[in-house]
Amino acid sequence: MKAAVMRDRAIVFDQVPEPTPGQGEVLVRTLACGICGSDLHFLRHAPELLAARGPQPVFTTVLDRDIVMGHEFCGEVVGYGPGCRRRLPIGTRVTSVPVGVLGGQVTTVGYSNDLPGGYGELMVLPEASLLEVPEHLATEHAALTEPMAVGLHAVVRGQPQPDHVVLVIGCGPIGLAVIQSLRLHRVHAIVAADYSPRRRELALAMGADVAVDPRRGSPYEKWLELALTGETVPSPLGELFPAAPGLRPALFFECVGVPGVIAEMMEGAPRGARIVVVGACMQEDRFRPMAGINKQLQLDFVLGYSPQEFAATLEHLAAGRLDGAPMITGKVGADGVAQAFVDLGDPERHAKILVEPWR
Amino acid sequence: MKAAVMRDRAIVFDQVPEPTPGQGEVLVRTLACGICGSDLHFLRHAPELLAARGPQPVFTTVLDRDIVMGHEFCGEVVGYGPGCRRRLPIGTRVTSVPVGVLGGQVTTVGYSNDLPGGYGELMVLPEASLLEVPEHLATEHAALTEPMAVGLHAVVRGQPQPDHVVLVIGCGPIGLAVIQSLRLHRVHAIVAADYSPRRRELALAMGADVAVDPRRGSPYEKWLELALTGETVPSPLGELFPAAPGLRPALFFECVGVPGVIAEMMEGAPRGARIVVVGACMQEDRFRPMAGINKQLQLDFVLGYSPQEFAATLEHLAAGRLDGAPMITGKVGADGVAQAFVDLGDPERHAKILVEPWR
Repeated sequence: MKAAVMRDRAIVFDQVPEPTPGQGEVLVRTLACGICGSDLHFLRHAPELLAARGPQPVFTTVLDRDIVMGHEFCGEVVGYGPGCRRRLPIGTRVTSVPVGVLGGQVTTVGYSNDLPGGYGELMVLPEASLLEVPEHLATEHAALTEPMAVGLHAVVRGQPQPDHVVLVIGCGPIGLAVIQSLRLHRVHAIVAADYSPRRRELALAMGADVAVDPRRGSPYEKWLELALTGETVPSPLGELFPAAPGLRPALFFECVGVPGVIAEMMEGAPRGARIVVVGACMQEDRFRPMAGINKQLQLDFVLGYSPQEFAATLEHLAAGRLDGAPMITGKVGADGVAQAFVDLGDPERHAKILVEPWR
Repeated sequence: MKAAVMRDRAIVFDQVPEPTPGQGEVLVRTLACGICGSDLHFLRHAPELLAARGPQPVFTTVLDRDIVMGHEFCGEVVGYGPGCRRRLPIGTRVTSVPVGVLGGQVTTVGYSNDLPGGYGELMVLPEASLLEVPEHLATEHAALTEPMAVGLHAVVRGQPQPDHVVLVIGCGPIGLAVIQSLRLHRVHAIVAADYSPRRRELALAMGADVAVDPRRGSPYEKWLELALTGETVPSPLGELFPAAPGLRPALFFECVGVPGVIAEMMEGAPRGARIVVVGACMQEDRFRPMAGINKQLQLDFVLGYSPQEFAATLEHLAAGRLDGAPMITGKVGADGVAQAFVDLGDPERHAKILVEPWR
């Protein structure tokens, strides 16, 4: 089959063997698959990513074998492996969490040597994971379920309250998905920040109240301006102590994923802020613990979503409560993926490029 | 009055002007004052500490003027400033949160140029903050209210549940206070880790279930050993996916405060761990955000305590529900503070040295 393959730390267009559905697995033809910022990161920083340690190992992928990336997909059922319940007719459009199982090991579809992702024409996916795409939801929008679910999960973990004033740093697809999900959660004051005018436009179109260019003004000062209640609050230490300006609580989202951003947000945050880290910085990073300690900050690192959150996201997209459509800026075949990885480096031109490997 | 003074980045014994109680303030004679690890840190790293930025400035102290440190004190009322209610008779033993107000600014007693701390013979404290020390609580134990309150606050912020397995890295006074407060909260499985045999003995005496020497074994492996439930749990992804060993949830406390410890704990932590950062690392530090992201860790930076937590700690000490006594390893006069700062560098000899500036 045709596929864009990660080989020797580069993306190449090639023919690769078709996958065969095993026990309980379904053969799915890729209709559309988004290129994720994590894929761009992975191409550059795979060794650091694979170095994750701890009691529960995260990845078993090796870099001296091919990897067909692509984990944001919508496809159609084309065949069933043994032991399937065959509950969906051939031709049914589906999406799923990009997770499979191989040799008893959980494996991420799109970051695996053996489970090709959506940059190839065919995938095998566990039947139990498949979600039918509602008829009236366009294939290209259904392919956004995965990144939109990342935003939903991050927002759920951030536990937004109606009085939160939110700051979203970085308006790539994940920042935009966070903004959409904040609106879904009826969070009102959302400050977005990005250096790119096009990304700021998208942020406003997708629900931010204000979009700041950090070259022209501090996002943290804009946050403060919106967070001031105009009242003063007495000191918890007693009446001898000065009252302070009332501030609504702070919920920040890090949606950039490059070194230095977490530290900058910790320095800029007000006391008691919760910072949800969604951006996947794959290098070592620096920070000043005292910035966290003096202000009693909370850093919440998040990843992915639960299967329930993924399914809820698909429902929200189908019902129009979430809409990722404005972020789609281009489509390519499998032979266009390498160039698309380059083109995505320009935020003025692109936010989300979809791969249609059948082209 | 006699005092140990921080001057030109060194501790010197000298005579300094007596403080005068202002409006609503009480003159208090220091009976005992603990030397805190933060004071040792501050002597070395004050410029970094004072560099804290953000919308709400934290410190107004300058280093070219004297600072009389000491914020873990028990004293007695010796006089009242104007406008006091004089609710406590002269001679009443008191403690309080080490916070005052000067020129409309909140100031930390013991890190201020103008509010001397307990390494001097006299302090001025806001009357409204004073707590009477119950008669049967020894002065030296009452002086532990402050560090024990730090432990209580950290544990409250960690939200321990009965099924948590806890890891405390670092068994200095703050680690020991955390351990005591975990016992108060009926948390049962507590793994402590410290390179010092004496500190490990103290950890066990004060409530840890296991004390690990990191030179001989991994605290994270010991944690895992105690956290395994012996059952397996089904995958949230469905029955096709392998069940995983059941693990009790992880609550970690960073009680060291030197560079590299947060990163080490993030690498060693299991998925979903909450890491409460109590140790005050004053230098810039490094970490790998992906360790946090892959395992969805939560970092909770904490500082101090609320006035309510401070008062509750004093009550717990008076009732014997908290007991910091084993950590007291020495006493000095104001002229012994400089040497005590040196001696505290040897964890085999010392944990908590009390200053008695009246000596």
